[in-house]
Formats: sequence, C-alpha cells, structure tokens
Amino acid sequence: MLYKDAGVDIDSLNLVRKGIGKHVTKTFGRRTRSEYGLFGGIYSIDSDFLISSCDSVGTKILIACATGIHNTIGADLVNHCVNDILTTGALPLFFMDYIGFSKVDRKTLVNVVSGLAKACTRERMVLVGGETAQLTRFYPDGVYDLVGFVVGKVRKKDYLIPMKRIKVGDIILGLKSSGLHTNGYSLARRVLLRKYRLSSYIRELKCTLAQELLKVHRSYRKEIEPRLRHVKGLAHITGGGFYDNLRRILPPDCSAVIRKKTWQPLPIFRLIQNLGKVPEEEMYRVFNMGIGMCVIIDRNKLRNFKPIRPKIIGEIVKGNLGVKVD
Amino acid sequence: MLYKDAGVDIDSLNLVRKGIGKHVTKTFGRRTRSEYGLFGGIYSIDSDFLISSCDSVGTKILIACATGIHNTIGADLVNHCVNDILTTGALPLFFMDYIGFSKVDRKTLVNVVSGLAKACTRERMVLVGGETAQLTRFYPDGVYDLVGFVVGKVRKKDYLIPMKRIKVGDIILGLKSSGLHTNGYSLARRVLLRKYRLSSYIRELKCTLAQELLKVHRSYRKEIEPRLRHVKGLAHITGGGFYDNLRRILPPDCSAVIRKKTWQPLPIFRLIQNLGKVPEEEMYRVFNMGIGMCVIIDRNKLRNFKPIRPKIIGEIVKGNLGVKVD
Repeated sequence: MLYKDAGVDIDSLNLVRKGIGKHVTKTFGRRTRSEYGLFGGIYSIDSDFLISSCDSVGTKILIACATGIHNTIGADLVNHCVNDILTTGALPLFFMDYIGFSKVDRKTLVNVVSGLAKACTRERMVLVGGETAQLTRFYPDGVYDLVGFVVGKVRKKDYLIPMKRIKVGDIILGLKSSGLHTNGYSLARRVLLRKYRLSSYIRELKCTLAQELLKVHRSYRKEIEPRLRHVKGLAHITGGGFYDNLRRILPPDCSAVIRKKTWQPLPIFRLIQNLGKVPEEEMYRVFNMGIGMCVIIDRNKLRNFKPIRPKIIGEIVKGNLGVKVD
Repeated sequence: MLYKDAGVDIDSLNLVRKGIGKHVTKTFGRRTRSEYGLFGGIYSIDSDFLISSCDSVGTKILIACATGIHNTIGADLVNHCVNDILTTGALPLFFMDYIGFSKVDRKTLVNVVSGLAKACTRERMVLVGGETAQLTRFYPDGVYDLVGFVVGKVRKKDYLIPMKRIKVGDIILGLKSSGLHTNGYSLARRVLLRKYRLSSYIRELKCTLAQELLKVHRSYRKEIEPRLRHVKGLAHITGGGFYDNLRRILPPDCSAVIRKKTWQPLPIFRLIQNLGKVPEEEMYRVFNMGIGMCVIIDRNKLRNFKPIRPKIIGEIVKGNLGVKVD
C-alpha cells in the first residue's frame, strides 16, 4: 500500500501548494524574509525576526476521539509547532489555538486546552488566545479539528540559514522520535485497523495500539536551544519524511545521504511496513522511522552534542542529487 | 426560533470558554498583557505590543462550497481578523491560514488562497505562511474549514484600553455592515433554506440569496486607522451581537444604551426575523443588524468622524446594567 491509497496524495498536495505559492508571494514586502515553502513564516521587526508557523495534528485527532483521551493531543500540536520554528533558530513566544467542532462535550474541550496550556508552559511560551468555533452539522459528532499557530523570535544575527552554512563533509545527526509523532496517520490507521483494534495489546510494541498511536510528538527545543550556535541546519521530519524535509535546507551543490543501517526503526514502523506491504522508499517518504529531527553540524562540533546522545545517520556529499536514503 | 435551535448554544459555549480560561491564564507571564476573553492576544516586545487573533468564517464556508464561489471567503476571514485586532488600536503585520479538507479540488484551494492574498495586500499585511492539511475521510467531500491567524502591532503608548477611557456621556457611533459578515450563519441558513434556494432571487434583498449571504465582511481599518487617536473604544459586532461585544469594553460603572430606531436594519435581518419568528432580543444577540463596528468617542470629537458617515446609535450611561438595546 502507498500513502496515496490511504487518501493522501503528496504529489498532488505539492501541486496545490505550488498553485497557492504565486498568490502568497505577491503579498511579500520588504519586511518579509520568507521564501515560500520553508518551515515557517518570517517577519522582520527591529533587530529581530518574528518566525511563525501553523499546523494541525492531522488525523491523529481521530485516535484521541476514538479513545476519549484528549489531554495529550495539545502537546502534540504545541511541540510540532515549536520544532518547526526551531529550524530557523527561533524560540517560541506565544501560541494560539483553533478548535472547530459541531457536537463535542465541554469536558473534552477543557481537556484539550489544559493539555495545550501545560505544553505551552513547558515550552516557555504563552497561550495567548484562541478560537472555539461551533459549526453546526459540519464536523462529525464527537470529533473536532485542532489547529495551532506559534510565533517565535530570533535575533537577526542568529537567524539560521542552512543553505549558506552547510558544506560537503558535514554530518547529519538524528534525534530519536517517540513514535509516529503527528505524521502518516491516514496510512497507519488504514493498515493497522484492518488487523487490530485500538485496544489490542501488541507484543512487538509492548503496549496497546492506542497507547502507541497517542505517544506524544517530542519537542527538541530543550536539547537544541543550548547548542543552537553549533547547528548548521535542522530538518524536522514531518509530512514528506526524510526526502522533502532535508531537501528544503540543502544548498544547491550539496546532497544528503542518510544511512538507514545506522539506527533501528521503531517497531511500529516495521509493523506498518509488513502489514501494509508498504515499499521501503515510501516508508522513508511518509514516516520519521524513529528519527524526529535531523541536525546538520560540522564534524568537529560533535562533542557538543554528545550529552543528547544523537546517532550519526548520514552526511553531506557533493552534487545535486537531493536526498538519498541508502 | 432561537440560535440554540439551530445548534449553536452561546451560553454553553461561554461555559466552555470559562472552563478553558483557567488553564489558559496559567501560561500568562510577565510579557502577557491579555485578559482572558478580550478580542485578541497581547504580547509585549520592546516598545510594542504584538496583538494576535484567531478566527474562522464559521458555516459561511458552506455557502461558498454550495455555490462554488471561493474567491471571496478569504477576504471575509482576513477582514474579520483585522477588525478584531483593530479594537486594541493595532494595525496588521502578518497573517497565516489553515485549510483543512478531505477531498477538495486544486482549483478551489487556489481560489481560496488567491482571495486571502488579495485581502492581505489590501490590508497592507503579508500572508506569511499557512498549512494546507488533507485529513482523509474527516471533512465531507467538497467542504473545507478555513482558519486565520493575524499578528498586528501597536505602540505601547497607543494601546487602546477602553475601560480606562470610556466615560458617562460618550456617544456610540455605528458603522454599517455589508450584511451578515461572518456571523449567525447556522441560524440564517436554518431559517432561510426552509423557504428559499440559494439561487432564488429575493425582491426585498434585490439579489439572490447566495449573493446576499456571500457579501464580504467589511474591514473598518481604512476608516478607523486615521482616526484612532480620537477613539475611546471599539466593539466589533460578531458572535454575541451587541450584548456580548459591547460589554467586553465597558468600565464597571458604565452601561451602554443602543437605540434601535436610529438605524434601519438591513433587509436580510428583517427577513430572517419574520421567517424564523426569531425574538427581537435574540436578533440583536446573534446578528449585527446592519452595524458591524461600534466606535465609542467623546461627543466633541464627532466632527472627526463625519467623513465616514457614522450613525449615532447610542450612548454611555451610568450604572452597571451592561448593554441595553432599546
């Protein structure tokens, strides 16, 4: 099975984004430093850039709704957003959320927001506002969509421009993910729920399927923040997997080689691959495979990262082949 | 019929927001100036406040989807957000959008974003990024949800604190709305679609029902911006109508009296009221009735507002009775 068979067509989505891009870039003025297609939006104010990003947790929300566990999905959203702006060197300032629903009980909504608020505090930012919108007969009963918007800040002189810094010979570190994070759930659900229920205990996973699928998207801020000055580039491995996310930060004359053998993918990914007969390349295009953040550094800086126990999972090589998973 | 009968229960929503509030305010730190329940979030940075707001267009989206007219819904969203932050004295800097959908064709999405981009340019802000999320079998086919986040800025010294400025004797100006704006669509659709089709030409409205319901939410920035220094308070008349929105800006010892006879409600509101047998008070609680923005000023400043042809629709009186529509 391919991601496309589960209803998500990355190529077609990329076409949509291309069509959208030409309208978006027309609004860019002298205060915008964004290039369309980066992880976050960039706005210049005094000596800082304000970096913003918008995300949802995708169909992971359906796992929360099916299990009635609503107090962790907020952290998924917050951490996803924080990781996105971290890739520019920015640290979070404030967050807003949108919850859209037709019929959801009060307790559920309060649980969602209490989770959001705790995660914001952990990430040292303010949940500054949000919108709780009831759209009659629009969403299925008991189901809601959850969207987050983060604004962070980076001093102009500290703004991370991977394309200018990354050189042939640099190494790619991989930081562990906790599981699927917020990615590839349409494919995962399609494959796994044919055989298992959410309440099934799965031996390989050492937990129930629901527990595995609700594992919280990790934030890498705490580990990366004190080491930002040694970082040349960061790729948050979300939709588009290793291919699309690493490609976004490569200089034109550099390629990235990821060596799969350097780490053991988490058991959940092998399970999905085997059950769904998902081609190997598709797995690395859709999922994080156990690596949630790639950090590109000069080989000599490795000792600064030792305390956070990264895996060296690849390197930057010459040529414009893009990303190769080997 | 009441709004509640159309599936939207404002009281219950207010309870949800109260439950949420205590978690949200826990994240507030020294840089937050927000009080929970205001129009926008406030974050202090250097000599400015960053003011942010999040909104959706509610079920107006269903009119866009039913008619296939997707190039104006973006302006509804942008203008709604701009008006919200304007109430603090802030002018917009940048905007992000979220479009969630399951199956929507590419052309539709590009139309939505082209409308967003044009409205952003008109409001002198940057569409700095966004998220286009495909959630398999989550949204009905052909339907999408559209959410916007705006960030604006106001100098700390110009920050508008209506509660400190509004005095007994001040007058309330009303600026015309174009129609429903983005509000009360669940009730309006329920009432109107029992009798009419969207394509029906309605004599009182001088247009088809679809044309009426798609009229674009007005932005009041252009009219208010050059007069901000004469403004004591602004209430954007959205969900909660005159009651909830004016109450938010009243000092504890002041009440607002709105005199209904000072303007003629737009024909669409009379049509909804008559067809749906909606109680008079409910109309002013749900809809804008033809006034999209209330501007509270000192009586002596009236001449500064003459060029934008406001109606004097009420005044500030003594007492803590809140908002009275008379």
